[in-house]
Amino acid sequence: MATTLIEGIGSLVTNDSAFGGLCGVIDDAALVLDGERIAWIGPRSALDGAGADVRLDAGGRTVVPGFVESHSHLVFAGDRAQEFAARMAGQKYAAGGIRSTLAATRAASDADLLANVDRLLGEYLAQGTTTVEIKSGYGQSVLDERRSLELAAAKTPYSTLLAAHVVPPEFAGRTDAYVALVIDEMIPACAELASWIDVFCEHGAFDEDQSRAILAAGEAAGLGVRVHANQLQHGPGVELAVEFGAASADHLCHLSDADVEALASSDTVATLLPAADFSTRNRYPDARRLWDAGVTVALGADCNPGTSYTTSMPFVIALAVRELRLSPDEALWAATAGGAKALGRDDVGVLRPGARADLAVLDAVSHLHLAYRPGVPLIGAVLKDGVLVAGGLS
Amino acid sequence: MATTLIEGIGSLVTNDSAFGGLCGVIDDAALVLDGERIAWIGPRSALDGAGADVRLDAGGRTVVPGFVESHSHLVFAGDRAQEFAARMAGQKYAAGGIRSTLAATRAASDADLLANVDRLLGEYLAQGTTTVEIKSGYGQSVLDERRSLELAAAKTPYSTLLAAHVVPPEFAGRTDAYVALVIDEMIPACAELASWIDVFCEHGAFDEDQSRAILAAGEAAGLGVRVHANQLQHGPGVELAVEFGAASADHLCHLSDADVEALASSDTVATLLPAADFSTRNRYPDARRLWDAGVTVALGADCNPGTSYTTSMPFVIALAVRELRLSPDEALWAATAGGAKALGRDDVGVLRPGARADLAVLDAVSHLHLAYRPGVPLIGAVLKDGVLVAGGLS
Repeated sequence: MATTLIEGIGSLVTNDSAFGGLCGVIDDAALVLDGERIAWIGPRSALDGAGADVRLDAGGRTVVPGFVESHSHLVFAGDRAQEFAARMAGQKYAAGGIRSTLAATRAASDADLLANVDRLLGEYLAQGTTTVEIKSGYGQSVLDERRSLELAAAKTPYSTLLAAHVVPPEFAGRTDAYVALVIDEMIPACAELASWIDVFCEHGAFDEDQSRAILAAGEAAGLGVRVHANQLQHGPGVELAVEFGAASADHLCHLSDADVEALASSDTVATLLPAADFSTRNRYPDARRLWDAGVTVALGADCNPGTSYTTSMPFVIALAVRELRLSPDEALWAATAGGAKALGRDDVGVLRPGARADLAVLDAVSHLHLAYRPGVPLIGAVLKDGVLVAGGLS
Repeated sequence: MATTLIEGIGSLVTNDSAFGGLCGVIDDAALVLDGERIAWIGPRSALDGAGADVRLDAGGRTVVPGFVESHSHLVFAGDRAQEFAARMAGQKYAAGGIRSTLAATRAASDADLLANVDRLLGEYLAQGTTTVEIKSGYGQSVLDERRSLELAAAKTPYSTLLAAHVVPPEFAGRTDAYVALVIDEMIPACAELASWIDVFCEHGAFDEDQSRAILAAGEAAGLGVRVHANQLQHGPGVELAVEFGAASADHLCHLSDADVEALASSDTVATLLPAADFSTRNRYPDARRLWDAGVTVALGADCNPGTSYTTSMPFVIALAVRELRLSPDEALWAATAGGAKALGRDDVGVLRPGARADLAVLDAVSHLHLAYRPGVPLIGAVLKDGVLVAGGLS
């Protein structure tokens, strides 16, 4: 395979602590790619002069690992801009809004759903995100959840069966009957297409017993566990996630002392989604407390049409610094290495020999600019699997 | 001059109340441009079939007036990313940080300063901002302020002498002597190069008497008035602005009842800069109260290296909806027509026959997406003076 040398990297974020600090930043660095993997990384001065098939120059710019999005809902149809505007005018967010997307998604063709996934993945990629988990959850029938996962699986190796997102209208007032459908039919039909099971454990959605039953059935079918927990109020979601050894507990805007202790003594990643809190005017999670307690923190954009219609991990990083009080280094780490941990991967979200050649070139002299320059499109170039997929490098 | 027809506009924001509502939105619209001006605007169905020299198709997308930035500080050198990171870790913002930019700007070459202005104007334009006011204020000597204004005037017809931004080090402890320099030498030397005088009237910067003396001298030299008022705490800035019939009072994070009443009974525009409050973790202004009192509200990005290093008016709109509680329509109006009013213009910030052909095409079905999709680069194409300057239209 062809080797590629990238030099002229003013500042390189590796997330490899061998290079010092949380983010392992190397000034005046170089990278050698061998096909889709990183072959060498280090200071330019330490690079053997030996040739590479292709030589590129980052022009003094900053290189960071591609962002890793571990929480998205991309298989949907329709738009909820009017609901957003009404909410900003004071109407409170309620989980029931999900049902309007459910109806639109069920009515949409495969081609339209796939075009929507492609459009949003294109946005993610153009803004530096090279790994994206995709959840189902707007089908909520055996056939529609299976269809959603088939579409997701065509686009990403990281997909999640969000079997219990909202009680569909045909089960109104019969939540337990829907839970039985999930356990008896949906999980058996869908497990082969997903890596994880997920539930929206929240007042107004699914309660502790219902959530536990679904997670247990998913686990028994060989799926890993994720939980939407404590977004709108305090509930049993975090404890449940830890009980199952979940890969992640997501949102976490309401945390008790016991929740924080449970997470700190577990391997469950705390996945924080501040763009959803931004767009619902919700309370932000206490990331500072989680981080300081030793919990592994990931950041995600949570792209979905109801509560967080963004694909911008740079925006999420800026919010995490402003509102969640993570440092710029912590926020970048959480949006890269943290997301990778939430997906159980050690070959993305980090730049070191053997890792995938997934990276973003920032039009900036430092990764601090991701938070320091909010809203500015700083992504100058993106490589995924060693291939330039957005922007330019010469 | 060549005429251009743009059709296929799914939704067109005119800011012309003749088309209804605050934003005068027309569905399924068309535009005819004659050179650098708008010749015709209306529903596609009302367009005479007569030919145009060029026909473009917006592909069902949304068109909005180009954003009007009425408050920026682009003539500077250096970077304060480390100060930003320290502030986010808890260090309070103090106006004195300006002095580090002052030193870097004085030491920079004209070519370097101009390249920085060009870079930032390019960012503004690529994100849909077609009119930008530029302040001096990082020179704070007669020669350096004059140089800053010469560089600004090469790039925009809207420039402001920010004569009193920070007391320069050579006047430390002698603020009145610096004020005398401004009045006796700087304003006479610089007035021909600017349209407005501006002062940073704030505790730790310039007090009421100093500010009044400078504004009066600027006014006597033929300049319009702007005031940086009440950003960090309550002070006399708003009253002073109204006393002078200022074009705008800017920031306004701390307002008394009397301030709001004074603004409401004046023609002074309230220019709100929430990106600065975002990046300093400052209190946001009460835009809702100002709007409801009948004050004309403008939104600006306040691009500067200390407190708001962004050029993204879409980001400002998203913040204004989330944090300032403007509706998406109000926020868009304030970022276009509001900015134009702050600059005393009626030919930008609005799309109607005779207005300048400055507009942005959004990759979105509605202008609501500017707030509904925070952080996502939605600007698909930009025309300034009728010329395509960013993105694509076919």
